[in-house]
Amino acid sequence: MAGDRIFLDHASGGPLLATARTAMEKVLSGHGAAPGGGHREARESREILESARKQAADFLGTNDPERVVFTSGGTEAVQSAIRGWGEATGKGTIYVSEMEHPAVESAVRRLEKSGFSVVRILVDGEGRLQWKKVKPAGPGLVCVHLAHHDLGTAQDLKQAAAFAKEAKAGLFVDATLGAGWVELPKGLDGVDLLAVSGHRLGGPKGSGFLWIRSGRPWKAQVEGGRQENDQRAGTENLSAVAGLGAALEEWTNSVGKFRKNAREAQQALLDGIRTKVSTAKLQGPEPGSARSPAHLGISFAGLEAESLALVLDRVGVAARGGSGCVTREMKIPPAMKAIGAKPEEARALILFTLGVGTKTSEMGAASDRVVQAIKKLKAAMPD
Amino acid sequence: MAGDRIFLDHASGGPLLATARTAMEKVLSGHGAAPGGGHREARESREILESARKQAADFLGTNDPERVVFTSGGTEAVQSAIRGWGEATGKGTIYVSEMEHPAVESAVRRLEKSGFSVVRILVDGEGRLQWKKVKPAGPGLVCVHLAHHDLGTAQDLKQAAAFAKEAKAGLFVDATLGAGWVELPKGLDGVDLLAVSGHRLGGPKGSGFLWIRSGRPWKAQVEGGRQENDQRAGTENLSAVAGLGAALEEWTNSVGKFRKNAREAQQALLDGIRTKVSTAKLQGPEPGSARSPAHLGISFAGLEAESLALVLDRVGVAARGGSGCVTREMKIPPAMKAIGAKPEEARALILFTLGVGTKTSEMGAASDRVVQAIKKLKAAMPD
Repeated sequence: MAGDRIFLDHASGGPLLATARTAMEKVLSGHGAAPGGGHREARESREILESARKQAADFLGTNDPERVVFTSGGTEAVQSAIRGWGEATGKGTIYVSEMEHPAVESAVRRLEKSGFSVVRILVDGEGRLQWKKVKPAGPGLVCVHLAHHDLGTAQDLKQAAAFAKEAKAGLFVDATLGAGWVELPKGLDGVDLLAVSGHRLGGPKGSGFLWIRSGRPWKAQVEGGRQENDQRAGTENLSAVAGLGAALEEWTNSVGKFRKNAREAQQALLDGIRTKVSTAKLQGPEPGSARSPAHLGISFAGLEAESLALVLDRVGVAARGGSGCVTREMKIPPAMKAIGAKPEEARALILFTLGVGTKTSEMGAASDRVVQAIKKLKAAMPD
Repeated sequence: MAGDRIFLDHASGGPLLATARTAMEKVLSGHGAAPGGGHREARESREILESARKQAADFLGTNDPERVVFTSGGTEAVQSAIRGWGEATGKGTIYVSEMEHPAVESAVRRLEKSGFSVVRILVDGEGRLQWKKVKPAGPGLVCVHLAHHDLGTAQDLKQAAAFAKEAKAGLFVDATLGAGWVELPKGLDGVDLLAVSGHRLGGPKGSGFLWIRSGRPWKAQVEGGRQENDQRAGTENLSAVAGLGAALEEWTNSVGKFRKNAREAQQALLDGIRTKVSTAKLQGPEPGSARSPAHLGISFAGLEAESLALVLDRVGVAARGGSGCVTREMKIPPAMKAIGAKPEEARALILFTLGVGTKTSEMGAASDRVVQAIKKLKAAMPD
């Protein structure tokens, strides 16, 4: 069965791109010198580091690699962005939805505790941020996600930037889900801070970066040595950075192909499930420009998501039951509440997330297995 | 020349242990699932994670793997320990020397800014903390290093623990330099928090961990998802954790051999330099139980450390000129000031740091090259 498995939990973690793995293995088999030092080995390591920084800026479509700060992943990048902005400014208003990733939400709550105001941005039934329903209440920081972890919704960053401008606030984009898959504004127009997670792009786990527009208020959150131009202390994780750089370069070169492939697989999986399971309900927008092509969140009303995911696992599909990133005891993900989903739908959300290697040809088998799992689960349920 | 180089900057970064590299490559070539999930792939990843946690506890000689929190390195572990303790307690006194690593010092200053008192512990001429000269000034946290980055001094943790007990304070040990090389108290007796850096143990860069004794006040510093039992958010860096676990296991099994080998190489290098360079002066204690066997800090009075390190590089020795971890503009490392070193010695400190693979047989050549470098540098200096 193992060779036959269909892995659809890429948002949590998935295989490395071959280029990323090669880049990492090269570093891991080398002398291991840290980039900070005067000797030849340190200089060689520094070249790898700076080359990855350039690859990151190219991926973003900006010309300022020096504004890229490598982190230990998306969570650190998000936390560092918001808390670092908060520390640098000291006061202001945070504009944010109630369905952000806990990494965003916890940082916002820290700022709130230290005196910042929080204005909540409402969302519609498909998770789109409702910019017309929020009013500027003073300068501060607008926090938006590029794509939503549970709903797949791709947010309109133009509207976000326009609102931020009106409010005289900065704009932080949590692109930890969505980067690569969803178009970013050209030159990151209107964006002040942006966080990227490496492992969702076929890069290594434990990699990510924060981009901070030149001149924007921000303070380093991990202090100590002078790595990353004083913006993030700690010996650089050179293999992770090299792997991330290689992955980002592959994305820059192949983004069209990656997106097209995912869109096809996404549509095939969705069509298959809809045809075969009448109770299936897509949450978030239909596939298209308003949704990440790598994401499907589908409710199977009447079933409990985690149980269904366990049975799916047994029939050979790895997917995630329930919200990607909320606490275990929360039976209803905040996003489901925010969009006004019925409780029986909210409890029954399965996330199917695609990767660069996902094959459209396997999506028929995947939807067949969904049918099989539902039958098995129903057979095991008390009447 | 490349094959001929002698690498003596292991404290900054060095080659991976073969076992660590193998463990990492296995993870990097796998399915890449994150440990948090219900499917088979997630369970497999979880086993790797928990096995590494056990390896870390075994390395420490404790029975509580659940108290191990994997971090992105030593700096994060140190910062998280001190700031997390500060956040959990809210007030108190920090007892700390003036020659700590910037990761420690900056965390202490953050706490000081937020209302904590700071009592400075004096050191003697070889960098030993002077416990008899410091008076308890209320409960709080005692922060000590296991071995000093610039001086190699191994601190007496029994005295530190006795003082902490008297002061009714917790004890944090920064073991980011020294772990493995220097004996830890049995069962970590008297220690409340301890930080370890992976790459100084032949593990990967970007790996490390924080150990927190059960029941001690501490709050997670990276928030978001529920990884690491809610103690450190962010998708686990599984390859780094696996590599660190493998390195720690090798240390647990071979610690005697590793230390003996390093002691021999250390003595050979020191003897060679002393015999051949009359101006050479060892900073910190003589080799023995009061010094890390992997560390030599030697002043070459009259020369400028960074320049000498550059010439050393040209003659085939990678070493570090000046303090390992202080800011570039600081010409005099705080530790040199704290021990009362003469300015001309303080400016001329070269750090030679050894690794598991350092060969005693190469130390003769290394000291010859030191002589050669000094000659070259003097020849280039204006009269």
